[in-house]
Amino acid sequence: MSIRIGILGYGNLGRGVECAIRQNPDMELKAVFTRRNPETVKILTEGVNVYSVDEAEHMAGEIDVLILCGGSATDLPKQTPEYAKFFNTIDSFDTHAKIPEHFDAVDAAAKESGHVSIISVGWDPGMFSLNRLYANAILPEGKDYTFWGKGVSQGHSDAVRRVEGVKDARQYTIPKEEALKAVRAGENPDLTTREKHLRECFVVAEEGADLAKIEETIKTMPNYFDEYDTIVHFISEEEMQKNHSGIPHGGFVIRSGKTGWNGEHNHLIEYNLKLDSNPEFTSSVLVAYARAAYRMSKEGQSGCKTVFDVAPAYLSAKDGAELRKHLL
Amino acid sequence: MSIRIGILGYGNLGRGVECAIRQNPDMELKAVFTRRNPETVKILTEGVNVYSVDEAEHMAGEIDVLILCGGSATDLPKQTPEYAKFFNTIDSFDTHAKIPEHFDAVDAAAKESGHVSIISVGWDPGMFSLNRLYANAILPEGKDYTFWGKGVSQGHSDAVRRVEGVKDARQYTIPKEEALKAVRAGENPDLTTREKHLRECFVVAEEGADLAKIEETIKTMPNYFDEYDTIVHFISEEEMQKNHSGIPHGGFVIRSGKTGWNGEHNHLIEYNLKLDSNPEFTSSVLVAYARAAYRMSKEGQSGCKTVFDVAPAYLSAKDGAELRKHLL
Repeated sequence: MSIRIGILGYGNLGRGVECAIRQNPDMELKAVFTRRNPETVKILTEGVNVYSVDEAEHMAGEIDVLILCGGSATDLPKQTPEYAKFFNTIDSFDTHAKIPEHFDAVDAAAKESGHVSIISVGWDPGMFSLNRLYANAILPEGKDYTFWGKGVSQGHSDAVRRVEGVKDARQYTIPKEEALKAVRAGENPDLTTREKHLRECFVVAEEGADLAKIEETIKTMPNYFDEYDTIVHFISEEEMQKNHSGIPHGGFVIRSGKTGWNGEHNHLIEYNLKLDSNPEFTSSVLVAYARAAYRMSKEGQSGCKTVFDVAPAYLSAKDGAELRKHLL
Repeated sequence: MSIRIGILGYGNLGRGVECAIRQNPDMELKAVFTRRNPETVKILTEGVNVYSVDEAEHMAGEIDVLILCGGSATDLPKQTPEYAKFFNTIDSFDTHAKIPEHFDAVDAAAKESGHVSIISVGWDPGMFSLNRLYANAILPEGKDYTFWGKGVSQGHSDAVRRVEGVKDARQYTIPKEEALKAVRAGENPDLTTREKHLRECFVVAEEGADLAKIEETIKTMPNYFDEYDTIVHFISEEEMQKNHSGIPHGGFVIRSGKTGWNGEHNHLIEYNLKLDSNPEFTSSVLVAYARAAYRMSKEGQSGCKTVFDVAPAYLSAKDGAELRKHLL
């Protein structure tokens, strides 16, 4: 019998989950729940219904894992504890500073209802966090570096779009080559914000807008741009459409550490991602962890978990003997 | 109370474990066991005794985890099932093809005695295996690539040393740049053995030896060299001592995969290691998994495990709340 998945929220992430389910023969999409009028939401999978979010809890018996595809700002802090009452859940909550409080709220709900809820799944938090943990456990004396990009930052793109005279914008976060090179050379540099990343903006301006003023406003924007070297390009709407409609991302997690009786040997552990579609990759991670949640729940586990708490074997459709034979 | 570690076998790996324990304040080295005369074995840690291997089982109550530092060819297949009767154990069994049978033997012993035995710990098998599993679970439609090096292959160095007229030898396995580049570009190439790695040998010849014949014998050696492009350099003993006394290694695990409703987006997941000391890095992984074995045993688990079965959080000295706050 396949693992029955529900999707709550059908944006880029929800659609990515739908695509990922199709790549995993042990899983099936059971239902999509939306806050919009269900009749206006067209999904890709034939024979699967779209329901109003109000229907979700009535379908608890038909769904093994509910994947919550809302945003971290306002959706997930409310939704995950709420739906953990009825379902095993997966979310991609990514406000790093608020993870402890989110964990506590979800843990209480999931423990009471006897479900497994895995939070903060994706690549950062998620795969990057895992790699930080493994590398820190192996090399206790060392230094961590995380670089993001090259990729589209949704938050920074939105910030540029709010500037007066801006019609559309896309912001790329780019790791600086010199910084990456120094880290990989084992130099253990202390890097400032400006030394680590570059910000590149592509902006479509309103007709007659003051371009110099837009550029100045972007470059001096507190929190978002003032601590970075920022490049601003003004382009046409056609160019935006043609060259900047994708949502690529990626990054690097590197730990540089020492071993030996006197720390005489250096080691470098690097994990990096190069993603054509940030939401689809995140969705693929969510779906793998949905398999884990299902299995852990079957074993009688309950409560809130993170990627740190999930034994890797739970993620794979293959059984232990097969994994040992082919992947170990 | 700290986790009390025993080391069985005091070669490069055993010494590496000793060094790694010193970097982990929650652990202490309790005893070293050797098959040699204990009086001839000098260790680095003050106040710790070296015992004959025959003493080990009598000290079962004083040691939480025994790390087996023998070789995979003849030592571990015998030692791990034997010592799993008395201890939680960690080994670095790395004969990939024989892992299933080793697992079964160790599992039977560890289950009967109620201990946790984690086998095949290190970087390949070990961290590389983990990265293969995670990447396969996330991107079910894709292709795996593993490259080794640049690094010293002990087995190939030994093979060259057995050639007539060779006094000493060091063999480096080197991934081919073009191959790595094609994989990273998402080209999904089918690569032959020759296309993936280059073999470079540094040889000290006996006086008066036939150098041309040595070179020919190496390059045509079945299994070891005949399927590779091999470079042979003849050097002096001094040069060998000066430039080739280290044991560096490393490598790359890359998965290239597709997502999207029609596989329209490409993704690349890469994990790579650059290690000054192969045995010391392996030892550092062994020690992190010793912490996991200790904790899993405390929880009442038993039997044989691999890195696939160990939730990442068990590896870290930090508790769950700390990990979520600082590494997630």
